[in-house]
Amino acid sequence: RSHVISCNTCHNLGTGGADNVPTSIGHGWQKGPRNSPTVYNAAFNVAQFWDGRAVDLREQAKGPVQAGVEMNSTPERVVATLKSIPDYVAEFAGAFPGMADPVTFDNMALAIEAFETTLITPGARFDRFLAGDDAALDATERRGLQVFIDSGCAACHNGPNVGGQDYFPFGVVERPGAEVLPQGDKGRFAVTNTADDEYVFRAAPLRNVALTAPYFHSGQAWELEQAVAIMSTAQLGTEMTDEDVRAVTAFLHTLTGTPPVVTYPILPASTATTPRPE
Amino acid sequence: RSHVISCNTCHNLGTGGADNVPTSIGHGWQKGPRNSPTVYNAAFNVAQFWDGRAVDLREQAKGPVQAGVEMNSTPERVVATLKSIPDYVAEFAGAFPGMADPVTFDNMALAIEAFETTLITPGARFDRFLAGDDAALDATERRGLQVFIDSGCAACHNGPNVGGQDYFPFGVVERPGAEVLPQGDKGRFAVTNTADDEYVFRAAPLRNVALTAPYFHSGQAWELEQAVAIMSTAQLGTEMTDEDVRAVTAFLHTLTGTPPVVTYPILPASTATTPRPE
Repeated sequence: RSHVISCNTCHNLGTGGADNVPTSIGHGWQKGPRNSPTVYNAAFNVAQFWDGRAVDLREQAKGPVQAGVEMNSTPERVVATLKSIPDYVAEFAGAFPGMADPVTFDNMALAIEAFETTLITPGARFDRFLAGDDAALDATERRGLQVFIDSGCAACHNGPNVGGQDYFPFGVVERPGAEVLPQGDKGRFAVTNTADDEYVFRAAPLRNVALTAPYFHSGQAWELEQAVAIMSTAQLGTEMTDEDVRAVTAFLHTLTGTPPVVTYPILPASTATTPRPE
Repeated sequence: RSHVISCNTCHNLGTGGADNVPTSIGHGWQKGPRNSPTVYNAAFNVAQFWDGRAVDLREQAKGPVQAGVEMNSTPERVVATLKSIPDYVAEFAGAFPGMADPVTFDNMALAIEAFETTLITPGARFDRFLAGDDAALDATERRGLQVFIDSGCAACHNGPNVGGQDYFPFGVVERPGAEVLPQGDKGRFAVTNTADDEYVFRAAPLRNVALTAPYFHSGQAWELEQAVAIMSTAQLGTEMTDEDVRAVTAFLHTLTGTPPVVTYPILPASTATTPRPE
């Protein structure tokens, strides 16, 4: 509504697909309730948002557009804006052939999903290691991987996105302090209304995690080592040695892949009927 | 300081190099005092800012970084941020060979200026017309060009950037209303402290003007035709006919050029010593 906040404001392709602040800033400088998850590889997650309330990316894309603390727009306003700009009308007609009225809020979301499915980051050193290149990881990183598996991290952080596949309480063993786990955000409980889901969140996908500080849904851990140590205590009930924390952190750095080359889009100009910023 | 506002927030390469709002939104959702000028072809202007207070782009680049209503940072904070990120240190060392301490606020500004000099938009239909292709402009556009010259627009809007070459009072003949010419912004007077410079501004460069609504330093004219009509009254003391206004507007649309292809930059990750958002 302000014409200042875009998807890329909080999911910045240049900074790991996220915004590197604890919780995002939206319309009117309001702060959102949770740390912005990366859009890179988001297509691999079981569902979207920290609480999985959107079944897929096209459903997810409709949320921030309308959220009062994010873009603060409406489906009607989005459609009116797109329809006021002939180039967008032509693009939608081309992208959704045969539809009588292709410029819809649903199709906007579908188009964003289609773009997001291109945002994958292959070529991480860990992928090269998995493909058989033992030299892709050094000794510390290999030890970190071993600790990651042996201590139980991989029980939740697994699959193509090294996480993002299921929901777990935070913490499984020991609940972290209120600065890391704010009392007011009960996570998936808001979706399922089931007591078992209090303080349950989707296991964070760990690809490119070295690029997306600060960590946790609350964005309260700035250092990756600190996040690993908190996870160790809260989820595993073990106090990892400093050496193990460093090794696991070194391993996590090997999950940084190569983002796709994105050409900065030149947007078509507004017209006299385009809704104005408010 | 918030880590949310960048140069590209107000000088968006996707929307004509400006932000398409009356006056820009900066740190803490504060509104700036003036409409954001385009960065495209800015290198051709006689000086930078609406009042020309920066002699060149490297001087200009230092302003918004520090302005409380824009990025609200400091030179020390900028340098500390760059120095905390090894990839930036290496890039500056490569860009400024032989310097003992290449990561400086001055060099940051110089680097931004170097990038901005690449932001030129050749290939406008008017350029093709100037190069001898009579068919590049249709009859209405050619008539608009004729009116543009005959009625006096070209007296101020000339040179490679079709403007941006000198300073003029707004208005030369008739002062527009306070919504277009706010009393509190005396323009170049703030730079020279000379009575003659009250309400004096740099003539707006008109390349790509069809992409950069709203218009004037106050951002109070949303329609290009409206802006032409106001200029006609205020600067020339003539009431252009509606037909002439439409013709001049049609001509102005021929000044839209082709922006360079910019690959979205992947920024290096912050480190433990990078200043955090505030």
